[in-house]
Amino acid sequence: MDLPKLTAQIRAFAEARDWLPHHTPKNLVMAMSVEMAELLEHFQWLTPQQAEQLGRDPVRREPVEDEMADVLIYMLRLADVLGVDLERAIHAKMIKNALKHPAVPR
Amino acid sequence: MDLPKLTAQIRAFAEARDWLPHHTPKNLVMAMSVEMAELLEHFQWLTPQQAEQLGRDPVRREPVEDEMADVLIYMLRLADVLGVDLERAIHAKMIKNALKHPAVPR
Amino acid sequence: MDLPKLTAQIRAFAEARDWLPHHTPKNLVMAMSVEMAELLEHFQWLTPQQAEQLGRDPVRREPVEDEMADVLIYMLRLADVLGVDLERAIHAKMIKNALKHPAVPR
Amino acid sequence: MDLPKLTAQIRAFAEARDWLPHHTPKNLVMAMSVEMAELLEHFQWLTPQQAEQLGRDPVRREPVEDEMADVLIYMLRLADVLGVDLERAIHAKMIKNALKHPAVPR
Repeated sequence: MDLPKLTAQIRAFAEARDWLPHHTPKNLVMAMSVEMAELLEHFQWLTPQQAEQLGRDPVRREPVEDEMADVLIYMLRLADVLGVDLERAIHAKMIKNALKHPAVPR
Repeated sequence: MDLPKLTAQIRAFAEARDWLPHHTPKNLVMAMSVEMAELLEHFQWLTPQQAEQLGRDPVRREPVEDEMADVLIYMLRLADVLGVDLERAIHAKMIKNALKHPAVPR
Repeated sequence: MDLPKLTAQIRAFAEARDWLPHHTPKNLVMAMSVEMAELLEHFQWLTPQQAEQLGRDPVRREPVEDEMADVLIYMLRLADVLGVDLERAIHAKMIKNALKHPAVPR
Repeated sequence: MDLPKLTAQIRAFAEARDWLPHHTPKNLVMAMSVEMAELLEHFQWLTPQQAEQLGRDPVRREPVEDEMADVLIYMLRLADVLGVDLERAIHAKMIKNALKHPAVPR
């Protein structure tokens, strides 16, 4: 995934719709939370079995993929506005996680 | 960002800690929501101006970057479990968004 | 507000629709989170000033009141399922909060 | 539950700590979302069976009760700031829900 290119496309999309003035950090993090809950909503009444099956059915999975994409789009927009390098951030966090949670000895 | 490689690293990390049995779609989407709220928490009491400034201060931005990374890590884990191709999903959703929200005419 | 009566009404409403089997603690806490985000959604793009004004306009406030009610309905359902006495819980928490956050000396 | 009295107590608590200027509608709805996620967090890794058992164990239930109380405290604060009568709101919403979801015929 080409993050800089995707980030620029998402920014241009917002700019062409005059949305940039609304894209403050507080508003973006709220919008991202709302999309997150729309993703959660797809799973709220499913049994654990039904939730597993959802992954194997491309037709039922499509609206779930759309919500995942919406969360990611707002995340890229927020990273752009805050000047966050997401690729660097995820690698840095994975190192912290490895120190915090040592692997189970075999 | 090399999504397949990152996805495999995150899966291996969970496997080495015996977490895979807990990584059902329902549990992952709940965990992702919790990380999302931890990101939101950094902004809840900030004025709009303070929220803008946060992006310009690398020291204060670091915990925010960590929460963004946590959301992304669970998103990659969820995509892995459900068999979602995130790169395809984001491109498909951007096309839908362009049809749903026509650009402002100039 | 008569909590025991309201709790019984909400339980009877769910029972008459055959929803009780779906009302597990995990499902209810997810549904409550979704309603919470629908409440958040009303505020996401408002300026601080617009958000203040919303409270003074009964017409614009009504959908916000509906979302607040939805969160409360699921909270009462969750308390019912878990056997939580909400009135006792809020009083106990307010005592803890007073110890945790001493008042500013004047 | 005496809502007007509880609402006044929560307002006085915030006032004594100089928090009222921070209690804008946007900030309160964000804070309420964060508490909602802290409630969700208690359930994220539980099996459905473990989540049911939690309700029967007063010791394990106490931190869950605290989070439910925190959501309710912010809801009462938000209702106060917006001028919402929560008791009226919940009754109005239950009538709407009855029209939207007719009971299953027996």
